[in-house]
Amino acid sequence: MTIYFAGSISGGRGDQAIYQQIIDFLKQHGTVLTEHFGQSSLTSVGENLADRAIHDRDLAWLRKADVLVAEVTTPSLGVGYEIGRAVEWGKPVICLYRQLPERRLSGMIAGCAGITIHRYDDVGDLPAILRLSLTPDP
Amino acid sequence: MTIYFAGSISGGRGDQAIYQQIIDFLKQHGTVLTEHFGQSSLTSVGENLADRAIHDRDLAWLRKADVLVAEVTTPSLGVGYEIGRAVEWGKPVICLYRQLPERRLSGMIAGCAGITIHRYDDVGDLPAILRLSLTPDP
Repeated sequence: MTIYFAGSISGGRGDQAIYQQIIDFLKQHGTVLTEHFGQSSLTSVGENLADRAIHDRDLAWLRKADVLVAEVTTPSLGVGYEIGRAVEWGKPVICLYRQLPERRLSGMIAGCAGITIHRYDDVGDLPAILRLSLTPDP
Repeated sequence: MTIYFAGSISGGRGDQAIYQQIIDFLKQHGTVLTEHFGQSSLTSVGENLADRAIHDRDLAWLRKADVLVAEVTTPSLGVGYEIGRAVEWGKPVICLYRQLPERRLSGMIAGCAGITIHRYDDVGDLPAILRLSLTPDP
């Protein structure tokens, strides 16, 4: 199974340790095409690549992935954009969301029939959630 | 011309006065389907509607709009999602972005060939930008 993992870069480097843990969990289920999202060298201004190159590379990865797993606690234009494209392609989309005070998950994500949302409190909850989501039915 | 305007709700009520000004400018060019984005009664927890109803109503509006105009300074999952869907439909997408320190526009938005990006410093710059973008060539 190939997995495209998405998380906020520009707004969410504070979440980066969580992203790295999620990527480690995901690697137990398949190949993660976007491992660099968990790297601490990825700064809040993003990658040192031309925007068009980033876009086209990531879209090609997303297109070939079997599933999109997105951590959506920190709002991100890029993650939302990737979710929109993946939904349009009929690709399975799994969103992981930590409820924070004074925050609400976007109605456009929460209300989309093509998206499965898993709310979690602690990253330790995720292995079980991902196992149920990513293991094919027998 | 029908125009779908999108801006961050949950993260960006501080931008709401700017959104209202943009909507007022847009109304000089056509019908704005999402006028409520500029309303001060729209709080940071969003609308009092079921998520599925919000999603389906907004997607129906987006589908029938001639153009999507998105203010993308404040990161938003919902706005990114709408941009992704609109790009996939081949709909014109115009993004308005104020450069802020320590911030960079998502590479997925900046690098997408289907999106026109206008950077601005002051909301007073926008009438001229929108006139050039929204007036059909003679």
